[in-house]
Amino acid sequence: MESIKAGLLGFGTVGGGTYSVLRRNQEEIKRRAGRGIAVSRIAVRTPAKAQAALAAIVTREAGAETGSGAGDLPLIDSDFDALVRDPGIDIVIETIGGTDRARELVLTAIENGKHVVTANKALLAVHGMEIFQAAHRKGVMVAFEAAVAGGIPIIKALREGLTANRITWIAGIINGTTNFILSEMREKGLDFATALADAQRLGYAEADPTFDVEGVDAAHKLTLMSAIAFGVPIQFDRAHIEGISKLDAIDIKYAEQLGYRIKLLGITRRAAKGIELRVHPTLVPSSMLIANVEGAMNAVAVQGDAVGTTLYYGKGAGAEPTASAVVADLVDVTRLHTADPEHRTPHLAFQPDQLSDLPVLPIDQITSAYYLRLRVADQPGVLAAIATLLSDRGISVDALIQKESREGEGETDLIVLTHATVEGNLRLALAQIEALPSVKSPVSLLRTENL
Amino acid sequence: MESIKAGLLGFGTVGGGTYSVLRRNQEEIKRRAGRGIAVSRIAVRTPAKAQAALAAIVTREAGAETGSGAGDLPLIDSDFDALVRDPGIDIVIETIGGTDRARELVLTAIENGKHVVTANKALLAVHGMEIFQAAHRKGVMVAFEAAVAGGIPIIKALREGLTANRITWIAGIINGTTNFILSEMREKGLDFATALADAQRLGYAEADPTFDVEGVDAAHKLTLMSAIAFGVPIQFDRAHIEGISKLDAIDIKYAEQLGYRIKLLGITRRAAKGIELRVHPTLVPSSMLIANVEGAMNAVAVQGDAVGTTLYYGKGAGAEPTASAVVADLVDVTRLHTADPEHRTPHLAFQPDQLSDLPVLPIDQITSAYYLRLRVADQPGVLAAIATLLSDRGISVDALIQKESREGEGETDLIVLTHATVEGNLRLALAQIEALPSVKSPVSLLRTENL
Repeated sequence: MESIKAGLLGFGTVGGGTYSVLRRNQEEIKRRAGRGIAVSRIAVRTPAKAQAALAAIVTREAGAETGSGAGDLPLIDSDFDALVRDPGIDIVIETIGGTDRARELVLTAIENGKHVVTANKALLAVHGMEIFQAAHRKGVMVAFEAAVAGGIPIIKALREGLTANRITWIAGIINGTTNFILSEMREKGLDFATALADAQRLGYAEADPTFDVEGVDAAHKLTLMSAIAFGVPIQFDRAHIEGISKLDAIDIKYAEQLGYRIKLLGITRRAAKGIELRVHPTLVPSSMLIANVEGAMNAVAVQGDAVGTTLYYGKGAGAEPTASAVVADLVDVTRLHTADPEHRTPHLAFQPDQLSDLPVLPIDQITSAYYLRLRVADQPGVLAAIATLLSDRGISVDALIQKESREGEGETDLIVLTHATVEGNLRLALAQIEALPSVKSPVSLLRTENL
Repeated sequence: MESIKAGLLGFGTVGGGTYSVLRRNQEEIKRRAGRGIAVSRIAVRTPAKAQAALAAIVTREAGAETGSGAGDLPLIDSDFDALVRDPGIDIVIETIGGTDRARELVLTAIENGKHVVTANKALLAVHGMEIFQAAHRKGVMVAFEAAVAGGIPIIKALREGLTANRITWIAGIINGTTNFILSEMREKGLDFATALADAQRLGYAEADPTFDVEGVDAAHKLTLMSAIAFGVPIQFDRAHIEGISKLDAIDIKYAEQLGYRIKLLGITRRAAKGIELRVHPTLVPSSMLIANVEGAMNAVAVQGDAVGTTLYYGKGAGAEPTASAVVADLVDVTRLHTADPEHRTPHLAFQPDQLSDLPVLPIDQITSAYYLRLRVADQPGVLAAIATLLSDRGISVDALIQKESREGEGETDLIVLTHATVEGNLRLALAQIEALPSVKSPVSLLRTENL
C-alpha cells in the first residue's frame, strides 16, 4: 500500500526530530502500521535553513534502514497556507508552537479534511474546545500525545488504558525545566536564581524561562489531562498556577529534614463539589516513587477506583522523545485514517455530548494538607497560641517543630504540618495567626500531598 | 445504542472483579465508549456459588450508578460450550485460567466469530501463536492487556504508545509475589522460606507458590512483551528462567552494601545476533526508580531509541486492577467491534506477515555484568589468582571485595563485580576459578543490570 502523506509545519526541534525518527525507523514503523508514513512537504519560514537541517538528518541516518516513501525528499517552502490546503496531504503535523497562527493553520487543515498531529499544549489548552469541535464536525482526528509529558504515552493511558476507572486524581511532574531546577536546589543547596542560571547554561531552561518556572506550561498540560480524566471541558483559565520562582531554599531544606521533597506538581482531583485544577510547589513524602523523579525527567501518577495508583515515567521534552509521541500518533491516525469516526477514541476520551459541567473549584475550596513556615518570637506561649487558632478552626496539626534560634536573634522558624483541610478555612486561621504580635512576618505556605 | 453483550467464562477473582467494575462504572464507561457493555451470560462450574457472589456484588454496588444493560442480571449456568457458541454474545471474557480447556474454549469462541478478552498469560505464552492466527483468519480481536502487569496499561504502551521506536530492551518486575518476598527479605533480613511463609499467610503467595517463585509466571508475561516489542513469535519454550527460591539472604545483604537491590526481573533485549529472553534475580543500582518498587507492586521499564527509558508502575494483580485492564480491553473491542480488521492494531503489534526470525539467544550467549560470591581461603594470593583468570578472558573487574573472616575460620567471602561480558565466557573463567584449591565452594552467580 502507498505511504500515507504527512505535511510538516515547522522544522525546529520537534519537526526535525519527527522527520529524523520517521526516516530512521521507517521499516520498523511500516512493519507495525502496515503502511509507510512519508513527510512529503514541509513549510518553514526560512526554507534554506530547513534544507540544510534536512540534509544533515539524511546524512546522519544514512546507515539506517529506509522504507518506501522515506527515500523521497519532501518539498520545502514557506507556504504554510498552501500546505494545509494541499490535496496531496493526509495529515498535517503542527510543530510551529504559539497559539494564533497555529490555531489558524490547524483549523484550515481541519476544514480541508486533514487529520492533525500536534505537540502544542498552549494551543490546545487555550483553543482546544474550538479545535476538537471543528475536527468532530469534519470527521477528522486531532492527536496530541506529544503535548503532555513528551515521550510518555500518558494521553493514551488516560484516554484508553484506564477507561474502566472512575479516575480520582492525577499528580504530575510535567515540566522538566522546573524539576531540574528543584533537583539542583535540593542536591546542591542552591537558591532559585543560581539553579535557574545553571539550567539555562545547560540548555534545560530558555532565555526567557517564565512559561516554565511560573508553572504556565505545566498548567497547559494539566488542563488537558484533567479534561480527559474527568470528562469536563478544557478550562485553562480556571487553573490555579503558582511557579517555583518564589520558592525559598530553606523550605527545601526543612522539607527534607521532615522526610519530604518539594516538586512542582500539576494536580487535578475529583472532589464532591467540583474539580481541583492546580499547579504549585508541593511537599511529597520522600519514600514515594514520584518524589524520586529527579533532573529533567517527567512522571505522572494517576489514581483510578479500580486500578489504584499507577505511575508513568520518562523524558518529557527533547527532539526524539517528543518525536516518539508525534510518530505514535501518526501511526494511530494512519491506522484509523479511513475508519468510520465512531471507531475512533473521542478526542477528550468522553463522547463530545457527554461532557460534565462539574465546575473547577477556586483555590480556596480545594482540600490539601499544608506546610507552614512562620517567623516567631522565641518565647513561651507562641506555639500554644498558634496551635489554638488552628484547632479553633478544626485544623489538626501533624507536627509543630520549632527550629533552634541563633544566639541573640530572639526569633526562630516554626514549622507546622497540618492535616488536610479546606484552603479557605486555613487562610482564615492564617490571617489570625499573622495578626499575633509574636508572629514576625507573613506565613510561608506550601501544600503537602501524600497521594 | 444497545449495549454490547459479553459472556464471562469463570467468576473467580478476575471474573468477579470484572463484573463488579463494569457494574459500578457503567455510566462512566458508557460516556467514554458511546455504548454500554453488559455481561449477559456467565459460565461457571458451580452456578449456585456464582449466584451468591453475584448477589453480593449487586448489593455492594447498589449505591453506585448503573447504566442500561448493567441492571439486567446475567444468565448463570455451567454450560461453557454453549456460552462460546451463543449467538447473542459478541465478546467472550476468559477468566478460567489454565491452558487446555481455556485454549479449547477460546478457539471455539473465535470460530464462532466472537472477540475474546483474556487475562490468561499462560494460555497466550503457550498457545498464543495458534490463537492469534485463528483470530486473524476470522477477523476477530483477542485482547490481553490484563495478562501482563495487571492494571498497568503496558501492552497498550508497547503496542501503540511506542510504535515510533526501535525498542532496545524491556526490564520488568512483573510478579508481585516474588517482589513482595524480596522486599521482606531485604527489609527484615529474612531468609527465603520465612518470607515465603509470611507472603502465604498474608495472601500474597499461593499454597503452591511454584509458578510464582520459580519465575514461570514472570516468563509467561515477559515472552508476550518480547514478541510485541521486537516483532518476533511468542517463544516461551526458549525463555531462560531462574526463580528466587535458591536466593541466599547474604547476597541481598552484600548487594545492599554495594548499593544494589536484588529484584526478580524479566529482561528481554535486542542484541546483534538475537533476542535475550530471561527471568532471574538481578542486582539493580539502588538509585534507580525500578529498584525502589517494593512490596507486591509491578513496574516495567522500556527503552526505545527515540523515547529513551520510560517506566510504567502499578498493581500487577488483584481483582480490581486486573478488571481495570479487562474492561479497558472491552472498551477497545466495543469501539472497533464492527470496524474493518485493518483499522485494528495487530495482536502482536507487528503485522502478522512481518514477524522477524531473529532467534532467542541461549543463556550462554547473553551479555550481562555479574555479581560473584566466592568462599575462599583467607590467605595471600587468592585475589590475584582470581583476578588473573578473569582478566585472561578479557573480563574487567569493577570491584573485588574481601569480607572479613570470622576468627579462626580461615575462610572468607569474596565478592566480585564484573563489567559486562558474554555469559559463556564468564562460565569458562568460573570453571577455572572453581578448580583453584583456595576456592572452597561453587561460585554464587547473580546478574547485574545497570539499565
